[in-house]
Amino acid sequence: MCISVEHDIVNLIGATNVEIVHIGEERNRIAEAEKAGVKSVPALVTPNGNVLHINYGASMADVKG
Amino acid sequence: MCISVEHDIVNLIGATNVEIVHIGEERNRIAEAEKAGVKSVPALVTPNGNVLHINYGASMADVKG
Repeated sequence: MCISVEHDIVNLIGATNVEIVHIGEERNRIAEAEKAGVKSVPALVTPNGNVLHINYGASMADVKG
Repeated sequence: MCISVEHDIVNLIGATNVEIVHIGEERNRIAEAEKAGVKSVPALVTPNGNVLHINYGASMADVKG
């Protein structure tokens, strides 16, 4: 997630209730994110599996380079 | 907000911590939303004034018709 959005989400939901994945750095999790339905980042995957794409930052294609 | 996104946000943040505005119905609040920086809906305005645009649904121009 973008840092600003990350802070907003953590403040709203609570740090213990959300897992932060910096997909550009943790590249071994790109496949997992795509399987979850993440099309762009930042995104928030909800407990029931919905994906909220937030403030379109970069496509997964851009992240994968 | 779109109903699905609305439910996700309420589940994550808690119904008492978020005000739901259906901007297509509460047209007298369009100006307030635009002033807050809402460019498209659904969107979440955080306590510190940031705007998280979620799953780009419709532009404010579309809402205003």
